[in-house]
Amino acid sequence: MERAIVLLSGGMDSSTLLYTEARMKGAGNVLALIFDYGRLKHDGEFHSREVEAAIAVAEHASVSYRFIQIGSLPSCPLTTSAEQIPDQSAGRQVDTVVPGRNTILLSYGLAYAQSLGERATVFFGACSEDDLSYPDCRESYVEAMSFAFMKASEDKVEVKAPFVNWTKKEILQKGLRYGVPYSLTYTCYRGRELSCGLCDACVERIKAFQDVGVTDPLEYENEPHWSGCVAYDKEF
Amino acid sequence: MERAIVLLSGGMDSSTLLYTEARMKGAGNVLALIFDYGRLKHDGEFHSREVEAAIAVAEHASVSYRFIQIGSLPSCPLTTSAEQIPDQSAGRQVDTVVPGRNTILLSYGLAYAQSLGERATVFFGACSEDDLSYPDCRESYVEAMSFAFMKASEDKVEVKAPFVNWTKKEILQKGLRYGVPYSLTYTCYRGRELSCGLCDACVERIKAFQDVGVTDPLEYENEPHWSGCVAYDKEF
Repeated sequence: MERAIVLLSGGMDSSTLLYTEARMKGAGNVLALIFDYGRLKHDGEFHSREVEAAIAVAEHASVSYRFIQIGSLPSCPLTTSAEQIPDQSAGRQVDTVVPGRNTILLSYGLAYAQSLGERATVFFGACSEDDLSYPDCRESYVEAMSFAFMKASEDKVEVKAPFVNWTKKEILQKGLRYGVPYSLTYTCYRGRELSCGLCDACVERIKAFQDVGVTDPLEYENEPHWSGCVAYDKEF
Repeated sequence: MERAIVLLSGGMDSSTLLYTEARMKGAGNVLALIFDYGRLKHDGEFHSREVEAAIAVAEHASVSYRFIQIGSLPSCPLTTSAEQIPDQSAGRQVDTVVPGRNTILLSYGLAYAQSLGERATVFFGACSEDDLSYPDCRESYVEAMSFAFMKASEDKVEVKAPFVNWTKKEILQKGLRYGVPYSLTYTCYRGRELSCGLCDACVERIKAFQDVGVTDPLEYENEPHWSGCVAYDKEF
């Protein structure tokens, strides 16, 4: 069986990817890579909130994982100061691009895929909403990286982003069918214990749940309106 | 002026690349990236011997540099145990491939290039001898990575490996014309203070100097034969 390496952020998209790959290939054929690239941490905490979520998701899926510390990235708002993250309603552009991040994470995927010594695919959870802001989430980028990895590995390692043309709503619909434990995932840019409910990332997530008509099992600092939504019925 | 990011290992090839780019573009337009990816260190030393060489070369070239710690790579002989490195004369195959390394280093190059916010090229010092053992040193790989980086950066960042079809002899000939301080560089796989003179990397370097007919200014544990070679006349 071909092996799968999944870049796991702990958010909705990559968690859904991990579950669906584990279901299709068997959890033993999947390796999750969880990265700390300097996202803000709470006082005294060892991991960022996002990393905690990723570990919980991997463990729940019975998938082995490696924790990888990415140091020395150029600084940017997501790794520097939570105050720089505006509410989406502020209408202010925020630069949530971490320069080179996806390419570095994929490259670690290549490293681990090559160390397995067999054919493997590096999966990452880019989706169509990402396409607008992040050139390194577009299909043309994914295809170009896959081609480069095939060159680097003598045709053993490729890259796939199966959700690259999917909306978050479509990803969520699939994940709900597969029983993804969304209560364990974490999406918020602010990195506090509870999701804020107001930043770009939270607003997109909440909209996906509202569009599907299901209540998000996460607790929010600013609780969204769930009128017309059915209760999330998975208990984890 | 377009900016240059040079991946600097401290060896002959990347040091020559740094000097020629600094000469052509002006040292102020060049940024060197120096990586610690877990190469073996002497007892009590903070940096590997290779990193020390890279820092000395960058400082001598008056080029700014960033030091980047690459953690969490899958283990391999070059980062695990010096005993696993055989002499070239042993005729034993040694796996000196660090899985994914070049792709990870180039990806950091992309990150720093993007953080400059302008057009930039990431340079790395692959040469034709590398081609045989390392797929991620071949021209087809370099071109594929460049295409992927252009996608990631919306056409701002590309990759070049100007020596990819050059022999080490040709690189050395160019470097000697440019006054590259080869006494500061370091090539040996074994990572001890003095170069061993017997591993694959040392033997290739020594052969390049012998082919050019110049004595290598490095001191070796096992001093090579320099009969017929003129003295290296650069003092640094």
